[in-house]
Amino acid sequence: MKDTIKLDPWGTTDIRDYSKLFDLFGIEPLDKSKFRAFESNRYIRRNIDFGHRNLERILKAIENNELYAVMSGIKPTGPFHLGSKMTADDIIYFQKISRNARAFYAIADVEAYCDNGLTFAETSEIATNNVADILALGLDPDRAYVYKQSEALTVMNMAFIFSRGVTNNMMEAIYGKKPFGLYVSALIQAGDILLPQTEGFGGPKPVLVPVGADQDPHIRLARDLAKKYYPDFKFVLPSAIYHKLTRSLSGEYKMSKRDPLSLLTLDDNPTLAKKKVMSCFTGGRETTENQKKYGGEPEKCVNYELCVIHFAEDDALVKKIYNECVQGKRICGDCKKEAAELVTNFLNEHQRRKAKLIDKSRELLARSREQLILSLK
Amino acid sequence: MKDTIKLDPWGTTDIRDYSKLFDLFGIEPLDKSKFRAFESNRYIRRNIDFGHRNLERILKAIENNELYAVMSGIKPTGPFHLGSKMTADDIIYFQKISRNARAFYAIADVEAYCDNGLTFAETSEIATNNVADILALGLDPDRAYVYKQSEALTVMNMAFIFSRGVTNNMMEAIYGKKPFGLYVSALIQAGDILLPQTEGFGGPKPVLVPVGADQDPHIRLARDLAKKYYPDFKFVLPSAIYHKLTRSLSGEYKMSKRDPLSLLTLDDNPTLAKKKVMSCFTGGRETTENQKKYGGEPEKCVNYELCVIHFAEDDALVKKIYNECVQGKRICGDCKKEAAELVTNFLNEHQRRKAKLIDKSRELLARSREQLILSLK
Repeated sequence: MKDTIKLDPWGTTDIRDYSKLFDLFGIEPLDKSKFRAFESNRYIRRNIDFGHRNLERILKAIENNELYAVMSGIKPTGPFHLGSKMTADDIIYFQKISRNARAFYAIADVEAYCDNGLTFAETSEIATNNVADILALGLDPDRAYVYKQSEALTVMNMAFIFSRGVTNNMMEAIYGKKPFGLYVSALIQAGDILLPQTEGFGGPKPVLVPVGADQDPHIRLARDLAKKYYPDFKFVLPSAIYHKLTRSLSGEYKMSKRDPLSLLTLDDNPTLAKKKVMSCFTGGRETTENQKKYGGEPEKCVNYELCVIHFAEDDALVKKIYNECVQGKRICGDCKKEAAELVTNFLNEHQRRKAKLIDKSRELLARSREQLILSLK
Repeated sequence: MKDTIKLDPWGTTDIRDYSKLFDLFGIEPLDKSKFRAFESNRYIRRNIDFGHRNLERILKAIENNELYAVMSGIKPTGPFHLGSKMTADDIIYFQKISRNARAFYAIADVEAYCDNGLTFAETSEIATNNVADILALGLDPDRAYVYKQSEALTVMNMAFIFSRGVTNNMMEAIYGKKPFGLYVSALIQAGDILLPQTEGFGGPKPVLVPVGADQDPHIRLARDLAKKYYPDFKFVLPSAIYHKLTRSLSGEYKMSKRDPLSLLTLDDNPTLAKKKVMSCFTGGRETTENQKKYGGEPEKCVNYELCVIHFAEDDALVKKIYNECVQGKRICGDCKKEAAELVTNFLNEHQRRKAKLIDKSRELLARSREQLILSLK
């Protein structure tokens, strides 16, 4: 039974029933009665963030006015897509909710080099662009540390130290049989997750990692290592919050950067984006007649996902779309037009904000680099 | 047959017949008629440096007044011992012989942390001491780059990039079955060996690595990777020169830092050093009578090794000791006294020079660190 779902951070993960992850991997369901404080987080409210590990640690830190960090990262291979946006939104949410929060954002340029053959000069430009996106989404640069893996000595040193604490068998149990180099990548990711707790960044503290469900193996590895290296580093076991995976516009599981037409990016020209939305996979019936008779299937519908996950701010609107759809009162063409408008409005507004933030992005990356060099003492 | 000698950089290597390494691993014998230019190198003249790979590339660079590098390293876990001195002497020799030579010296502090549990603060002090030794031995700081692995981003980035280019099988073929973390260490060493050829250090060039015979697996890995990553880095295949391994004073193969009384270090109090020499393992017969009758066995004698490898500058003296020994004209007690005097003279002189070089050592390490940060652009 344990094999029914494989979480593979480097492959394609098809999860139809997220509740299975609770038993299989020990992810805890996100019990909203325990986390009322986070009700203003749309992903949590709408069950998009469906599970967690030790999220209560973050809640407690907030309640006690204690320092904590929220960290995640991006591989700088192209424009910011909707999957990256989900992670970014959660980082921003958990940064905003307390003035004691610090955000960490790793630019995985070493991986972009290894996986995608992009030089550091190329990824540096992409990173500047990506960081402008997360700033436009609302990241507070004054409480953020945005660094490139290729410049993060502490991360690399940790990865090397950790390499002595793992075995091939351990790595295989967590990730499945993978090439040597991917296990090494995994150790860098563990270094990223534990960086906020190192001496140069103020020492041990709660850290929340918002990730897609497919990234759970990295969380498990980081937690195993946090335990193993407790005597040296006094790590607090890192917390995680998991969001569901966004499908591609054609309905495939896990949005991939490889097929650019199947995904929306925050750099998309709004006119192009509209076209993409208008041709997306829906949960509509074969004929208008059947649609009216049986109602649509929003659970299958990418257009509905675009609204509920990404672009409909208003809960009432989401409810309305859902109800009208299942009651057969809504035709896919109209529904897509409505979604396309939400998308183009968002993109216009986002791109307007972002255009003013490119310099700020460069500044933030340069400042983080400086901090990094200073923390080397 | 291939299994008769195992070269293990992390274990104990017992090589009685160095010529076997030529067939087994493709190390080339050091043909002195081809390398007359290096006759002033005592190790080469006396067959202590017994083999090489592509040493002709260095000779050619010298003849053509072209830039080349000589690189090796030390794990900063304690005082400089005689094994480290052999490597250092070769670095210094090949740095001195041409003004186009640059020396690189890696302080393997990440490994000292992993293997020996020494913190970076602890190894930093040891490194300062070790670097003062190599300065006292004659390293020219103006053409040397001495860096700590923990601060060498380029080395680490290369190690990560290389991790994608190897497989467990490749690593096992080179090193035998070893834990995951030692394979990762090996990739860092490959990064060290190839660092002098990176853009920040002037790009591709011949590099000579003087090492003990047991380190050949690292050379083979670095050469394999240099070939594999030629399209990205245009690496010149690194050259190597191999010295025989020094035994411990008690006659064991491979001097180990673990048994401090069985080895001489350059920090030894000369009086203590004298005592150590006086109780070393010799090639003497059971009785003085037999010694006079059959002669001693200098091939087995650690005391003779101390002279021929380390402390007798004068070839005529070495020849005299050898001849008198085999002819039974030399008694071990006298011979050890003579060696002890060479040792104490050397230590007195070395320690006098070194005392004045501690500040220079700190300065060199700080300057290299600065260069490192600058080369990050």
